[in-house]
Amino acid sequence: MDARHAILFEPVRIGPKTLPNRFYQVPHASGFGSARPRTQAAFRAVKAEGGWGGVCVEYAPISPDSDDLPAISAEVWDERDARALGLAAEAIHAHGSLAGLELYHGGASCPNGASRAVRLAPSQLTSGVQWGGLAKEMDAGDIARVQRDWVRAARHARDVGFDIVYVYGAHGYLMTQFLSALTNRRTDGYGGSLANRGRFWLETLAAVREAVGGECAIATRIAVHGDSGVPGAEGLPGIDIDDMLALVKMADDLVDLWDVTVGSWPEDSGTSRYYPEGHERPWAHRIREVTAKPVVAVGRYGSPDLMAEVIRSGAVDLIGSARQAIADPFLPRKIADGRLDEIRECTGSNMCILREETFNHVGCVQNATAGEEYRRGWHPEFFPPAAHPGRPVLIVGAGPAGMECAVVLAKRGFTAVHLVEAEAEIGGRLRWTRRLPTLGDWGRIIDWRAVQLARLPGVEVITGRRLTAADVLEYGAETVVIATGSVWRGDGAQPGYPGPMPGADPGFPHVLTPEQACAGQRPPGRQVVVYDTDGYYVAPGVAELLAADGYGVTVVTTFDVLSPVSDQTLEGDMLRAHLHRAGVSVCHATTITAVGAGSVTGQGRHGQPWSVGCDGIVLVTQQASQDTLYRELASDQAALTAAGISALYRIGDAVAPRMISEAIFDGHRLAREIDGQDPGYPAPYRRERADLT
Amino acid sequence: MDARHAILFEPVRIGPKTLPNRFYQVPHASGFGSARPRTQAAFRAVKAEGGWGGVCVEYAPISPDSDDLPAISAEVWDERDARALGLAAEAIHAHGSLAGLELYHGGASCPNGASRAVRLAPSQLTSGVQWGGLAKEMDAGDIARVQRDWVRAARHARDVGFDIVYVYGAHGYLMTQFLSALTNRRTDGYGGSLANRGRFWLETLAAVREAVGGECAIATRIAVHGDSGVPGAEGLPGIDIDDMLALVKMADDLVDLWDVTVGSWPEDSGTSRYYPEGHERPWAHRIREVTAKPVVAVGRYGSPDLMAEVIRSGAVDLIGSARQAIADPFLPRKIADGRLDEIRECTGSNMCILREETFNHVGCVQNATAGEEYRRGWHPEFFPPAAHPGRPVLIVGAGPAGMECAVVLAKRGFTAVHLVEAEAEIGGRLRWTRRLPTLGDWGRIIDWRAVQLARLPGVEVITGRRLTAADVLEYGAETVVIATGSVWRGDGAQPGYPGPMPGADPGFPHVLTPEQACAGQRPPGRQVVVYDTDGYYVAPGVAELLAADGYGVTVVTTFDVLSPVSDQTLEGDMLRAHLHRAGVSVCHATTITAVGAGSVTGQGRHGQPWSVGCDGIVLVTQQASQDTLYRELASDQAALTAAGISALYRIGDAVAPRMISEAIFDGHRLAREIDGQDPGYPAPYRRERADLT
Repeated sequence: MDARHAILFEPVRIGPKTLPNRFYQVPHASGFGSARPRTQAAFRAVKAEGGWGGVCVEYAPISPDSDDLPAISAEVWDERDARALGLAAEAIHAHGSLAGLELYHGGASCPNGASRAVRLAPSQLTSGVQWGGLAKEMDAGDIARVQRDWVRAARHARDVGFDIVYVYGAHGYLMTQFLSALTNRRTDGYGGSLANRGRFWLETLAAVREAVGGECAIATRIAVHGDSGVPGAEGLPGIDIDDMLALVKMADDLVDLWDVTVGSWPEDSGTSRYYPEGHERPWAHRIREVTAKPVVAVGRYGSPDLMAEVIRSGAVDLIGSARQAIADPFLPRKIADGRLDEIRECTGSNMCILREETFNHVGCVQNATAGEEYRRGWHPEFFPPAAHPGRPVLIVGAGPAGMECAVVLAKRGFTAVHLVEAEAEIGGRLRWTRRLPTLGDWGRIIDWRAVQLARLPGVEVITGRRLTAADVLEYGAETVVIATGSVWRGDGAQPGYPGPMPGADPGFPHVLTPEQACAGQRPPGRQVVVYDTDGYYVAPGVAELLAADGYGVTVVTTFDVLSPVSDQTLEGDMLRAHLHRAGVSVCHATTITAVGAGSVTGQGRHGQPWSVGCDGIVLVTQQASQDTLYRELASDQAALTAAGISALYRIGDAVAPRMISEAIFDGHRLAREIDGQDPGYPAPYRRERADLT
Repeated sequence: MDARHAILFEPVRIGPKTLPNRFYQVPHASGFGSARPRTQAAFRAVKAEGGWGGVCVEYAPISPDSDDLPAISAEVWDERDARALGLAAEAIHAHGSLAGLELYHGGASCPNGASRAVRLAPSQLTSGVQWGGLAKEMDAGDIARVQRDWVRAARHARDVGFDIVYVYGAHGYLMTQFLSALTNRRTDGYGGSLANRGRFWLETLAAVREAVGGECAIATRIAVHGDSGVPGAEGLPGIDIDDMLALVKMADDLVDLWDVTVGSWPEDSGTSRYYPEGHERPWAHRIREVTAKPVVAVGRYGSPDLMAEVIRSGAVDLIGSARQAIADPFLPRKIADGRLDEIRECTGSNMCILREETFNHVGCVQNATAGEEYRRGWHPEFFPPAAHPGRPVLIVGAGPAGMECAVVLAKRGFTAVHLVEAEAEIGGRLRWTRRLPTLGDWGRIIDWRAVQLARLPGVEVITGRRLTAADVLEYGAETVVIATGSVWRGDGAQPGYPGPMPGADPGFPHVLTPEQACAGQRPPGRQVVVYDTDGYYVAPGVAELLAADGYGVTVVTTFDVLSPVSDQTLEGDMLRAHLHRAGVSVCHATTITAVGAGSVTGQGRHGQPWSVGCDGIVLVTQQASQDTLYRELASDQAALTAAGISALYRIGDAVAPRMISEAIFDGHRLAREIDGQDPGYPAPYRRERADLT
């Protein structure tokens, strides 16, 4: 270990417990909750195994009036729920770490749509969240009941082995709703002055401490104001930093661990597009002004040097992590072992959040095993030895899927893996994606794999060689994996319009694909339309690129908002504000059906004719698999046999264009299962299901 | 029974099975799937008990590449899944009905986000659905594998007792993707001619028939073209009715039951706003031209006379129902018994769909017990006898919650329930809601309850009497239930802006609440802004009302689309097209912060200043509970005691303004639980959870 990093491995006492080091996986959602207890336990256990001294489960609603379904949370409504979550505590303890449970009440933010309970809040106001109704203004009975539920849940947590019990207040939930004068309009002892608005929080802390404080560390999660000047980030409505520091002073005796976040969730989980590593420091670190108790704060930390510096500064005591711990559960161990070049750095894309929010199943673009620990039995660092390690494997195409497949095969002990790339550098679509404005950190997907490919014996990378079918047949491989990726179609095919769009000929100088634009090709004139039916990062990226070159840019999109997928990564509002500031115009709910000379035409929301003048168009409409090589090979089984090729597979975008995380998953999966029964299809995986007994 | 209805009770042979009558609950989603097997079984069983001769479970994905999570479906990926669903078959059989399972593959429509399987489709096209990627063009191996999965799932279904096994093709899923030339661009034997595009469907039918045809009836669900001229409805892209009739002829020998839907899902499940009862007849009934096999078709049928007429016409053999069977599971029995005035007619609001799509838990505005059969043990027709039936109950307010509470108390045997309403007629907010354009059928919520209140002994309805706290104390009740509802605030308070909006004084003639507009009050001048931060039906309804009166109407909304909640009821596109045709303009993503003389001002999406000239504004911003009476009573326990009032409760919008379905649920729940331990809070309910053994 580098001596500079030793400070990260000091134990830290929190109330009655001691964390073995300063690495702390803060509570974050996974989609597993208490509904899939073994999946949850395995997902958290691997972090403890990787050296995180504190490992928490996600937000844990204490009662049916904090029901977040269909989002899956760690409901701890009764003893049976607690037993399910106890599997995680047990699994975390097995590796010597402390386990935390983040008890939670969402107040007016809870949909309560499944439980049908009335929503609760300090005052009867609409939340910005749209659930078809307002909350009940909590009366004295409601306040006492929620506090009793909190105590009951804390006792359950203790009983099943949790070491750290939270009173979760950040991210706009019930505690914060009481604290903010914007949402608390009460005239009784729980409203008005800051002391009154903080009363509910302090009383709850005191009650939980009274109940379990002797056996558990009491943590509370707060948000300080934030608002780092990024347009579209919200800060923390109605509570400024001085208010929050005053609350910390009032509550300090009741708390063993301060878990500090910043502003709104999109700011707190700020992506690399808009926030640098450690972006929360100017706000989160001010808490040290008012408390000597242990403090944990996040900041997408991936650099051991920066982590050590943060600890040495004295502002915080623990390095909090959610996303980096997903990207590399073994980060602490790798630092301890001095294996810094093996750390898989988080890209800050928030693909983890998209996957858990949209699909109730967390995943990671960097770490294909995240969320697969239980159901597929995958481990981020241990790989089952190959059945036939000497069998030569040829992988054609070094994009996300091909790179990942090669790395995993090499880690499994394959000794003759050739990764052959037609272009001069590896990376596939990421070569140009990482050069789009704000997306530089996505290049870490290439960088980590490039380092591994260079150091792993058994794999050879060959660039600048475009293989034909004949080349593949003559290559000498027994197993061939085609990973030739996808391209953007330049013909304007789009949902509902499968045929080429009139005038959308990529041979014309005024019609560009995203790749052409990224490669520096520019349309004539100064006015350009970027047409988006894709809905994620490509169209905004190209638009910003062209705007920076001085073009007048209008994004025309079939969607009601620009880049709806970015809302799933918490970036939507920031992205739209960012593009607005860059001078990009947006035309919503519009379909382009023809490209003419000097204009494009189509239809608006209600089918009405629509057109706009422009000198060129970039078509972010539809991708197509580059599968010619695969089809040629697959169509001649006799030739494959004659060449000694016993298996031909296809992975990644060459099968179907999709998100980068899923292309990487696909390459990883094939490499894991390549000596299974039917590697062309995913093996069945375990599911946790309702008790039928 | 009325002799005219006897035809509905004839048995119908389908393949090797016989349906006991012509009432058939078609497959429809519930949110329970195979994940909550006891909830599913109880939900379906009550329909069999109520007389539906055929009862189906919802769509049942056959494999992980038809994964619809986070939507919950009846996954039948393996034998264990099938055993879970078998509980429903068993429960349906217990009442003498046949059980059906709708085996399904969604093709390109499946997100596959949880399973991470590649999406499959006949051709590599984007679907209109945005899941971050395209589908794999199915190769011969994929086609064979999906068909094997279908056969395997069919065998599982048979083994656990299902009588009817589906090959689900309608609603744009995999079969339809093959059939439509818009989505099938193949050049092999599965693409090109209609016969080729239908090949996958026919082969699958033949394989399923071969496997289980001797023991199960084989059903297939198709869509005929539709497009009834309602703007925003889609018809069936790429397949006209002649194509579909040709397919039916080709497949007729393989099918025992044709389940016919019309057009797209929003058209097929058309709401009462835009479609009358029986709206599918002109399309669905044409299938008789080409088949003599049994046919089931839906059409939101609630009228026994119309059902009988439909059967007598010979066009269909079975009355299909989803929504009406939710609203009244006992409809067939009530017809058999001649109890026609007890039929709870479906309102056609699609609240059932909102609840199962948004919260994975079906519910119903008319039938508060829907979805509560297992978890709360509620039955739509049987009510536990009251512990103290003679205890006098006063319910103040005859809106949705109050009416429902009175009906359920009376059904439980309470003998002295007084329902006292201040206005001249009962119904609460529904009095004006049912008079909004297109919302007339929502009045069925009042009508059914009015009929029950009139016929049930033990309940007395008193209108036109506004009770003060003193009146309540003197009334002579032992139990008092306050159901005084809510009003729209006229002060412009809205999310993020809790204080009154400058200039938004409902005393001004140019500032109106929705109630005022519905009561006929009109602003001066001809240009009016309807400002919507609510997002459902009120703003569009008021806008249409004013437009019909000749006003120039602009709806200004904070949302990115008009009425986003209407998308959850499948009405969004139709509603927006309808308003457009009515001449209503819409301004999106805009916040109004002040009302001036002759204009309103605020800010646009990026905070830029915004204003528009107008003569008046209707503020659809925020509701407020009318809880003064409750607070006055609750604050003086001594007075309650002195008056002999042992229990004081509050239900519905008087607690918190919310959707009508939830206010009714709240009134129903209190009436069910009023002699329980702590009736002010919902009793705990059963949850189906992961096996921990």
